[in-house]
Amino acid sequence: MLVFHNDRHALHHGRHEMFRGQLVPCFEVPARADYVLQEVRSRGLGPVQGAPDAPLEVFERIHAPRYLQFLSTAWQEWVALDPSNAERDALPSYWPIRTFRSDVLPASFPARMGLFSYDAGSPITAGTWEAARQGASCAVAGARSLLQGERCAFVLTRPPGHHAGHDFFGGYCFLNNGAIAAQVLRDGGLQRVAVLDIDYHHGNGTQAIFYERADVFFASVHGDPHTEYPYYLGYADERGAGAGLGCNLNLPLPRGTGFDRWRQAMADALQAIAAWRAEALVVSLGLDTFAGDPIAGFTLAGDDYLRIGEDLAAAGLPTLFVFEGGYAVAEVGVNAVNVLEGFAQRAR
Amino acid sequence: MLVFHNDRHALHHGRHEMFRGQLVPCFEVPARADYVLQEVRSRGLGPVQGAPDAPLEVFERIHAPRYLQFLSTAWQEWVALDPSNAERDALPSYWPIRTFRSDVLPASFPARMGLFSYDAGSPITAGTWEAARQGASCAVAGARSLLQGERCAFVLTRPPGHHAGHDFFGGYCFLNNGAIAAQVLRDGGLQRVAVLDIDYHHGNGTQAIFYERADVFFASVHGDPHTEYPYYLGYADERGAGAGLGCNLNLPLPRGTGFDRWRQAMADALQAIAAWRAEALVVSLGLDTFAGDPIAGFTLAGDDYLRIGEDLAAAGLPTLFVFEGGYAVAEVGVNAVNVLEGFAQRAR
Ligand SMILES: [Zn+2]
Ligand SMILES: [Zn+2]
Repeated sequence: MLVFHNDRHALHHGRHEMFRGQLVPCFEVPARADYVLQEVRSRGLGPVQGAPDAPLEVFERIHAPRYLQFLSTAWQEWVALDPSNAERDALPSYWPIRTFRSDVLPASFPARMGLFSYDAGSPITAGTWEAARQGASCAVAGARSLLQGERCAFVLTRPPGHHAGHDFFGGYCFLNNGAIAAQVLRDGGLQRVAVLDIDYHHGNGTQAIFYERADVFFASVHGDPHTEYPYYLGYADERGAGAGLGCNLNLPLPRGTGFDRWRQAMADALQAIAAWRAEALVVSLGLDTFAGDPIAGFTLAGDDYLRIGEDLAAAGLPTLFVFEGGYAVAEVGVNAVNVLEGFAQRAR
Repeated sequence: MLVFHNDRHALHHGRHEMFRGQLVPCFEVPARADYVLQEVRSRGLGPVQGAPDAPLEVFERIHAPRYLQFLSTAWQEWVALDPSNAERDALPSYWPIRTFRSDVLPASFPARMGLFSYDAGSPITAGTWEAARQGASCAVAGARSLLQGERCAFVLTRPPGHHAGHDFFGGYCFLNNGAIAAQVLRDGGLQRVAVLDIDYHHGNGTQAIFYERADVFFASVHGDPHTEYPYYLGYADERGAGAGLGCNLNLPLPRGTGFDRWRQAMADALQAIAAWRAEALVVSLGLDTFAGDPIAGFTLAGDDYLRIGEDLAAAGLPTLFVFEGGYAVAEVGVNAVNVLEGFAQRAR
């Protein structure tokens, strides 16, 4: 299985995130991807390769130009505010919720940072843009490999992507790698592309990006947003809107859900994707469904990830895996590669 | 001049707020109101009195019941999450900006805290609800004194109110005292009530509450939101909507503005209020226009506040002053009472 590895991912290395009134060390750390790469190598998956820089125009198919412009200079603006900021991650402090405007681009950098985000847990660091951009380039390259006939490929990158929206970051995500990949598949000639999000957390960004579109089906199995992040999206009654009505499927599950019930939900999602006649599948591959995950609440075990890979292969679609969450750092490599190996063995 | 003093204000005493990626000590501290009360007493303004608890139904004329319900139990829910939270203020970490839902009330307390707020700078403490509620009760009592024929009164309370919206807190504000007072004036029989906000920061909450109403005119003189908090509202092109079109007047001024230009802007606001034929005036009295304010950028001097009071008296309307911002703590008392004394002398 082709593996597109973001070799600049470690340039994004946040120090702190806000959690319940305190600044705590970031959960989303470079070691996550390093463990996955090590496992990919030790189990002989591959080849592992990089990706050429994709032009911004490709990202602009998904993200607002003013948002990309903001991200590309955010760190420089942050340090320009105060040279001592170089020692400190950039975190926003205010946000334009209901009754506020989002149409005006304030001159203030901290205000723009809030305009383009939705949480205080996703620090912008000196290398965030470089890391995110290269990761999205890997997603582009991965999607193109499918267009060229590959049965499957794996985009091994961080920061993750599925919480990032058309014009906002949050949930550790800056560029929506999965959405960008789905769009590349569409722009490469496929008519119907599905995104299946199996991260513990609902992929609010991906859902919102495609919510009114009939050409991309979004399905997600995730922790019930009543109690789980991102809380404000991911409910079962969200079925798409306008032309996209019926092209969105949320399958929230209660905290504590184990593999049997989870597997049935993924089967339901795959059935809906098959009924919709998808031509290709992008899998937002989060591993935070694992029982040992420090910020999630399902109880999947290591071997379950082999079964997930097999089930996904059985769907029979060209499949691009995009690495998302998973914060049990020492196990995330084994669990991710279990999915890929389960897939590869069944797909053979 | 009757002074309605919130004798429970010190129950709200935040420890930290988020500012540019760090938790810093709160600017909005109990000493602010204490300095004003001391100056009121030493200059013989008064009498100083408290206020009976207003029933929640009065606040529900302005605020959403589900928001008041949230505030009333927020601290208990925060501590129930984790007993060690008793030593730590409650601050939210995520917010439902565009594409997210606000109609669902999540079971998660931190999620509801984000749903009902717009910044990470307004900590909820053990006594926040008690303090805010008593402050709003003082605003109710102040408005009722005008209905009973008083020429003017002063609501001396904190936390301030003008950033609080129909269903959100932020900008150190929880209950919108000025908006509640304006509504009491309306419900007491006045047909046309004006709110004039002269705090350094735009009164986004008050504006949003009355934006589509023709019976309350909102005017504000404030720092240009392109560079000044709250950034996402307060621009000159916001003139009201629907029935309220033409009943909203924003006069943003650049950072560094001095008294002459500021005074002309307030004169323009008063002229618009007179032309609209307001029957009473609520003044959101922020003193952070002072040159020495640590989080603002105008350059008003102490004596200028006497002139402001005189100009307000010359408008000839029953007037309720409601204390808002002002963070040059040692000077805030003199400056506030200068406004009141300037008003009282001219109104005599
Ligand atoms: Zn996740
Ligand atoms: Zn202010």
